[in-house]
Amino acid sequence: MNKNIQNLKFVFAPRTVAIVGASATANKIGNVIIRNFLDARFQGDIFPINPKYTELFGLKCYQKVSDVPGTIDCVIIATPAETVPMIVEDCVKKKVGGVIVLSGGFEEVNRTDLAQKIAEIAKKNNLPIIGPNCLGVYNPYTKVDSIFLPRYKLERPKAGGIAFVTQSGAVGSTVMDLAAFYGIGISKFISYGNATVLDESDYLEYLMHDKDTKTIILYLEGAKDGRKLLQTMKKVNKIKPIIALKAGKGVGGQAAARSHTGNIAGSYLAYNAAFKQAKVTEADGIIEVFDFVKIFDQTKPKGNRIAVLTNGGGIGVLTTDYIESEGLSLAKFSDETKKELAKILPSYGTVANPLDLVADAGVEAYEKAIDVMMNDPNIDALIVIVLTQTPPIDERIIHVLTKASDDKRKPIATISIGGTYTEVYRKILESKGVPSYNSPRAAVKAIERLITYSRYWEQLKRK
Amino acid sequence: MNKNIQNLKFVFAPRTVAIVGASATANKIGNVIIRNFLDARFQGDIFPINPKYTELFGLKCYQKVSDVPGTIDCVIIATPAETVPMIVEDCVKKKVGGVIVLSGGFEEVNRTDLAQKIAEIAKKNNLPIIGPNCLGVYNPYTKVDSIFLPRYKLERPKAGGIAFVTQSGAVGSTVMDLAAFYGIGISKFISYGNATVLDESDYLEYLMHDKDTKTIILYLEGAKDGRKLLQTMKKVNKIKPIIALKAGKGVGGQAAARSHTGNIAGSYLAYNAAFKQAKVTEADGIIEVFDFVKIFDQTKPKGNRIAVLTNGGGIGVLTTDYIESEGLSLAKFSDETKKELAKILPSYGTVANPLDLVADAGVEAYEKAIDVMMNDPNIDALIVIVLTQTPPIDERIIHVLTKASDDKRKPIATISIGGTYTEVYRKILESKGVPSYNSPRAAVKAIERLITYSRYWEQLKRK
Repeated sequence: MNKNIQNLKFVFAPRTVAIVGASATANKIGNVIIRNFLDARFQGDIFPINPKYTELFGLKCYQKVSDVPGTIDCVIIATPAETVPMIVEDCVKKKVGGVIVLSGGFEEVNRTDLAQKIAEIAKKNNLPIIGPNCLGVYNPYTKVDSIFLPRYKLERPKAGGIAFVTQSGAVGSTVMDLAAFYGIGISKFISYGNATVLDESDYLEYLMHDKDTKTIILYLEGAKDGRKLLQTMKKVNKIKPIIALKAGKGVGGQAAARSHTGNIAGSYLAYNAAFKQAKVTEADGIIEVFDFVKIFDQTKPKGNRIAVLTNGGGIGVLTTDYIESEGLSLAKFSDETKKELAKILPSYGTVANPLDLVADAGVEAYEKAIDVMMNDPNIDALIVIVLTQTPPIDERIIHVLTKASDDKRKPIATISIGGTYTEVYRKILESKGVPSYNSPRAAVKAIERLITYSRYWEQLKRK
Repeated sequence: MNKNIQNLKFVFAPRTVAIVGASATANKIGNVIIRNFLDARFQGDIFPINPKYTELFGLKCYQKVSDVPGTIDCVIIATPAETVPMIVEDCVKKKVGGVIVLSGGFEEVNRTDLAQKIAEIAKKNNLPIIGPNCLGVYNPYTKVDSIFLPRYKLERPKAGGIAFVTQSGAVGSTVMDLAAFYGIGISKFISYGNATVLDESDYLEYLMHDKDTKTIILYLEGAKDGRKLLQTMKKVNKIKPIIALKAGKGVGGQAAARSHTGNIAGSYLAYNAAFKQAKVTEADGIIEVFDFVKIFDQTKPKGNRIAVLTNGGGIGVLTTDYIESEGLSLAKFSDETKKELAKILPSYGTVANPLDLVADAGVEAYEKAIDVMMNDPNIDALIVIVLTQTPPIDERIIHVLTKASDDKRKPIATISIGGTYTEVYRKILESKGVPSYNSPRAAVKAIERLITYSRYWEQLKRK
């Protein structure tokens, strides 16, 4: 790992942080960020930097970075583009660990001159710089948070195993907000903007070694170096699954990407081929990223034979359609399983896959059916549809599904569709780590991606 | 229109309702349904029918339908399958207007003998029978509600212009729940199960003449009569747009459909061809049905030139990708528009489509940009992306977007992605009739379907 990539540790886990462009004006970037650190109870020292003030939020304010006594691990810059090269020079003088440049006004508005200046300084001094033109970093473990959107509008997710590397700040922030909403835990968030110094490959490399990260999400418009990205993805995806979302696929999208972060989006076909070659899981849209991420924490299945359990026939039929269109197969139950399932069903029920427990089914029927299916060697994964609206289904179903998810013999995806009542129930399930979907298509696609990645994983193990 | 289809009016707008299988036991079907009518303050008379009781919920309980004095418009039957033919005979004797049979235990469990019996009685007497094996009917205008799922678990949607015809009760009930959740208004809900007497085509025919219905959703597993369905869809879709969801597409799905409502799902390709021939809009999944329905209330666009407005570059890029992949085109702004938009943007902004107002943009910038775009003859439809999480965006944006939606010169779709804060904001927009999406893909697909249907509509007008 390059020295400057290694040095990212100063940005993700700093003992001291300086914020250049610190401000007393509410909603200004340099104001929101100091609040972030204070509100989250950052355990290190915070140094506001702005010649206009002597004190901010009760903290001593300095004129420039090099004026601060002692070591500075991380510097966050939120001042106009023209001032940034000078400030970065000052950071080098102070021997800071790493820098985040939030300011826009570089490649994306054709000020490559400014970008080149900071790139040169960084290179000469092995200084890791994130950005410019980005939201920077969020690390729930250390409370580093340079996302300059107020916490009451944009929730911050809890600590967990998902790292998120994003070129776009807008996409990044909405994904953070959604992760918090779904109760998904984040290890590191990196919005890297123009990628002037460090690029997506460097962050992937860092995360491969990061002990808190289990799965990596990558949102990409245009890679700095396509060949490097392919090699890095190949290497990293063997250790930790990468879920990628590529934007700027067509001519119009590429033009939009160019004026967004100053990067050439490049041919989508080339990216698509690279994802395939590296066995990276590609998502189509932000919602699908979450559909996939949720299930990658489940046990890796041994095959593609799915058992479907439902209390609503129609949703079972829809689910079966997607199982077939995604190239998965409906498990053929063993004789033992058929015998056991027949005991659970009402007299007019039929043992089949999907297994329709019908609307009269209570929580006990689900519990027994799941138990039988977990024991059947002909079944590789379970999709459990629960229409929570039927009278016999009560909150004990959450215990049953959590137990199935914790069982770890086979992966499980659950589907429930409905309004307020169902949404609450789904959010409880999510918070217990049970993958829960509001659409058969989403559930089946997610389980297919898990199966495909697991197959790759098995092949690697055998080598 | 056939006599028995016409007679459906007795089921949808009855002055008197009898409930056979009425029960004092909580959560029993015959109990939940009486509660539905009472809770919703049904304005007509309710007659519980069950020889076991003399009174239920303070209402006089009768032994059989023909014992009730006076006229009965609608009879709802929730007793075991074996008893149903006899009860239907009694309904004929009493000259009731129409019947809903909720009970299962007919074709779907190979009791075609029972099904044939009620079909014969219905045919001989022009008696409309909905079901069996269904959830029946919900009409928010008249408060008829035979959905036997408790209201605290399954919300009932408000009155509006969307009719929903569904073979599956499970799919039907979740769609009702979702409609309530999204604030979408329903004209009539019909869950028709085995379609033993009246089939999907008959309901489409009825809804074509129904003054409360503007758009029709059709969930279908297997049609009774494919040729009749094609002809009916052709006729109805010219007057009111039909959005169809077909389940049972593959071999496994067809088998599942067979044991669900006893109908042969048939070749999906044939259905797909029929939808295309009738210019019916086909949805892929329940969520997509709503994505489409939401936008069909907007003004019909004159072409496919889309303007995109955003305060987050990345979401603009993603949206552009879908515009291109869906075969729509990015509008080329007029010179006048370019001049006006340049005034709104900050110095470092670029006039382009998507128009990136950047994260500093406030509500005023949106208002002006939308105004300029509404006046540009080179733009047919607007997609407005609002990242609600940025500090300058406040709740006045709801007024701006509602005004744009009410403007009626061009259709508008809005996109906002995020957690709790954004969800609340989206739900307010939805309640004002502004189509709002949490995914660029969903918004673009929806607008594409509206454009395609509008083009068909224009062709019809010209003929």
